[in-house]
Amino acid sequence: MLDSCIFCKITAGEIPSNTIYEDDTFQAILDIAPAAKGHTVLLVKQHTPNLFETEDSILSKALPVAKKIAIALKKALSCDGVNILQNNGTSAGQSIFHLHIHIIPRYEEDGLVIPWHTKTYADGEAKLLAEKIKEHIL
Amino acid sequence: MLDSCIFCKITAGEIPSNTIYEDDTFQAILDIAPAAKGHTVLLVKQHTPNLFETEDSILSKALPVAKKIAIALKKALSCDGVNILQNNGTSAGQSIFHLHIHIIPRYEEDGLVIPWHTKTYADGEAKLLAEKIKEHIL
Repeated sequence: MLDSCIFCKITAGEIPSNTIYEDDTFQAILDIAPAAKGHTVLLVKQHTPNLFETEDSILSKALPVAKKIAIALKKALSCDGVNILQNNGTSAGQSIFHLHIHIIPRYEEDGLVIPWHTKTYADGEAKLLAEKIKEHIL
Repeated sequence: MLDSCIFCKITAGEIPSNTIYEDDTFQAILDIAPAAKGHTVLLVKQHTPNLFETEDSILSKALPVAKKIAIALKKALSCDGVNILQNNGTSAGQSIFHLHIHIIPRYEEDGLVIPWHTKTYADGEAKLLAEKIKEHIL
């Protein structure tokens, strides 16, 4: 754990999050500055800065989990599609240097471009949405 | 193999491509409509339309290969960062319905937004670039 890393603090439970999935290796939370409501960030629990420096044993587990979450988002939100996005380096839009994978619900004609304009949740909305998505994780 | 699928035709060798990596499961080629020069598309050889419908046994192999390619792009192109992007559904920007992962070289202040404005290669440039990247794949 890196003391200065917000994602380490979240996976350590020191900062609260709306968690929709957790296993030994990963924790998936709702992004607090989402591209679309339900935008999820899949965090690796063990601190690792980016793709380049992450062990294959961790990487190999990530896409099967991302698939599980993407399917749950489709069911919970009735979205039309999903982007999987993983940024490495500030030039690529990475702002927190702890490996994470964005899972973004998409709708026809939503006009979303990456980098995205942040949406906001009303009070309590993210918590309720997290619960709804969680119900759909198989 | 789907007769109507351009990526099936590429992995079958029926349509030429600038291939930078190949193994039993994947083939990585330079995108012909790149977001940046060196933009690579990692194709699954076996036809599968998207993340939702792909077996975990294939998905688990994808990110370790994407990492290998991302490292090679950094070495070959001296890019500052790399985006990993995988689109599912037309709403998410998927235009070829055969699972593929974009690996996009990024530079500080390159202004790239996704969906991207296509760059073009001069005659023979993509072939030379593919060779250069290939040299850096470990």
